[in-house]
Amino acid sequence: MMLYEVLNRRRDTRSEFTGAPVDDSALHRILAAAHSAPSVGLSQPWDFVVIRDDATRLAFRDHVNAERAVFAASLPPDRAEVFATIKVEGVLESSLGIVVGYDPRRGAPAVLGGHTIADTGVYSVCLAIQNLWLAATAEGLGVGWVSFYREEFLRDLVGLPAGSRPIAWLCVGPVRELPDTPDLERRGWRHRLPLEHVVHHERYGRRQTRDENEPAGSELS
Amino acid sequence: MMLYEVLNRRRDTRSEFTGAPVDDSALHRILAAAHSAPSVGLSQPWDFVVIRDDATRLAFRDHVNAERAVFAASLPPDRAEVFATIKVEGVLESSLGIVVGYDPRRGAPAVLGGHTIADTGVYSVCLAIQNLWLAATAEGLGVGWVSFYREEFLRDLVGLPAGSRPIAWLCVGPVRELPDTPDLERRGWRHRLPLEHVVHHERYGRRQTRDENEPAGSELS
Repeated sequence: MMLYEVLNRRRDTRSEFTGAPVDDSALHRILAAAHSAPSVGLSQPWDFVVIRDDATRLAFRDHVNAERAVFAASLPPDRAEVFATIKVEGVLESSLGIVVGYDPRRGAPAVLGGHTIADTGVYSVCLAIQNLWLAATAEGLGVGWVSFYREEFLRDLVGLPAGSRPIAWLCVGPVRELPDTPDLERRGWRHRLPLEHVVHHERYGRRQTRDENEPAGSELS
Repeated sequence: MMLYEVLNRRRDTRSEFTGAPVDDSALHRILAAAHSAPSVGLSQPWDFVVIRDDATRLAFRDHVNAERAVFAASLPPDRAEVFATIKVEGVLESSLGIVVGYDPRRGAPAVLGGHTIADTGVYSVCLAIQNLWLAATAEGLGVGWVSFYREEFLRDLVGLPAGSRPIAWLCVGPVRELPDTPDLERRGWRHRLPLEHVVHHERYGRRQTRDENEPAGSELS
């Protein structure tokens, strides 16, 4: 599949999983795609724990449900009503989970490019996740990133070493379809911003086009 | 370009920039690719500041050189010798810089999926960066992520608001070529790990294949 087509088709998937098995060679290709990501100082600080076991998935789903309730209770009534219609995970419906871990010891102590910014290793892990997500999309698989968990819980659940940190639980599997519009937008939780809002020229806040002859009115607030 | 071809061709670029201008429509496409990334609670917490101004680039390059010297001084002699051969930035040689910022206020206070893990917004920004990187690769542009800077310096340099955080300076522009092998590997800084080392089954550390009939000797340490 062409890159731009994949970028546009990719969705965060919760409701569309069929539960059909993931082909082993497709799983290998999406993990290899993740592993081909750039990383600070070539540290490759990621781990991928592939979860098929029902007991592990049930325990995680129950934990996520409890955290969902915590978040719901924090919302004002109108937002809680919208949130009630939103599915936040497909842990059991998907075919497998992939827990992505960050191991800061890889390449340590002197990670090239890591001395100024402690988080650069975490950044690398996220680049790998996006590679995985896009490859899965090209393979016709859905991916749903679950964020409603406490890191300590997930670390213990899959046995990550004390120094490592879970960055994501990804629900992965064949899907009936990939919707055109993000779920949160369809439910009215939040809408996508226009590109112009997030692009600035030379300094933050200069959102006008680069053509200096443009009238000042073209500047967005 | 096909997704898997892009994933394999992508490189972190420092030495290969030609300095030729970036086509405006290509720049628009790579920024749109970044903006199409998934984000926690559809918060889209990223900003992209496109830098062409020479004074800004010179100031940043000088800062990076100073941080390079700090890192070099921290290394044992044998590593310092390897490091001396490695180029860590192409700030002036590239056609433009893109400073990627993270704005935690977007979608706040109740970011769906953000109450458990404070860093989820940072993760989203990194996914956008990988989209940009892959789109640039498909457009025949190189991207080099510079990490040798202090966040406060870069925040002030491009005027990010106090609550925002710079995540990357990306050097972007046409390149003579994209090497097959990462620069750090060619210079002997570090080598890529086999995929099997970072893939685990059911629990961290279970690196054997999923076929239970495999001999125990196939397990990697």
